[in-house]
Amino acid sequence: MAFFPASLENLIDKFASLPGIGRKSAQRLAFHVLSLPEPEALAFAGAITQARRSVRCCKVCQNLTEEEICPICASDRRDQGTICVVSEPRDVLSIERSREYNGTYHVLHGVLSPMNHVGPDDLKIKELLVRAAQEGVEEIIMATNPDTEGEATAMYISRLLKPFGVKVSRLAYGIPVGSNLEFADDATLTRALEGRTEM
Amino acid sequence: MAFFPASLENLIDKFASLPGIGRKSAQRLAFHVLSLPEPEALAFAGAITQARRSVRCCKVCQNLTEEEICPICASDRRDQGTICVVSEPRDVLSIERSREYNGTYHVLHGVLSPMNHVGPDDLKIKELLVRAAQEGVEEIIMATNPDTEGEATAMYISRLLKPFGVKVSRLAYGIPVGSNLEFADDATLTRALEGRTEM
Repeated sequence: MAFFPASLENLIDKFASLPGIGRKSAQRLAFHVLSLPEPEALAFAGAITQARRSVRCCKVCQNLTEEEICPICASDRRDQGTICVVSEPRDVLSIERSREYNGTYHVLHGVLSPMNHVGPDDLKIKELLVRAAQEGVEEIIMATNPDTEGEATAMYISRLLKPFGVKVSRLAYGIPVGSNLEFADDATLTRALEGRTEM
Repeated sequence: MAFFPASLENLIDKFASLPGIGRKSAQRLAFHVLSLPEPEALAFAGAITQARRSVRCCKVCQNLTEEEICPICASDRRDQGTICVVSEPRDVLSIERSREYNGTYHVLHGVLSPMNHVGPDDLKIKELLVRAAQEGVEEIIMATNPDTEGEATAMYISRLLKPFGVKVSRLAYGIPVGSNLEFADDATLTRALEGRTEM
């Protein structure tokens, strides 16, 4: 027997279906939404509808956008000959934050993960190959995460890119700036030594 | 400069405004909603609208319901002469789960909390007094949480109820069933000793 009204139970179910939200948190969120003034609650509902309807993938780089082609791909101030390959839209945000990169992106929307049944066809790899085949593309920078799955994905894609004769590079590994040698793990230290540069 | 499309930023803002949801979690939730099939995303938005519009407080006990009077207050199988006073709608659920209580409830929608500027007028206390004044009410059980604010609220209300000549009781304190003396705190042990019963 459910003691909450049906529409409240339904809302709790919806919140509980979100990743990382348990039953108790879902209850708390649902109660919060009910306690909002009606216009605010409706604005929340509207934001979901609006975002789901108007956000799509850029035809070129597959990043999320409301246009057919995203502002970065459409900009003539960006170097369209360099493509930085990332796994998620939020990674674009991270790299943009550094203000150091002036090329374009390609968002894979995931990484290869046999454990989770994610294969090459589930990622936007084909779209990347189409871009690599176009004239003017000089360098493709693999910027997937430096974990096992990110490495494997970068490796897999760089092999596919070989025949196109494009330069393929990988982000440098090493000690994070401002960090402490004491806290660096072995794998990072090894990579930092291997990648040492002359001063 | 925002790099996510405006409607996505807006959705992230909405999620981030929920209690206990930080910026990173809000991003994760927003991305998840975008990745849902459109009907599911719209069903989520619909659930918010529907719940906010149809859920209201029962005219009698102030518990959340979709009717004018909730099923418990409307039932003739429940003892309408006993009122159990709780602070939140979810507490009703907890007590119902015990299957031990057959009276009605009164939901205060909060506890007295001077620190958070919650005074008697912010709670459904007046509505409780109106009920206490009616004929047939025999006992009012204070079942607010056994913490400082819950205690203070129970104390405050029981004083207001004195003039009505109704029996006012409080849930028993003691060692939780199935628990271990070793882990019981001093305050609980003191209360358990005070409230000891003959075997």
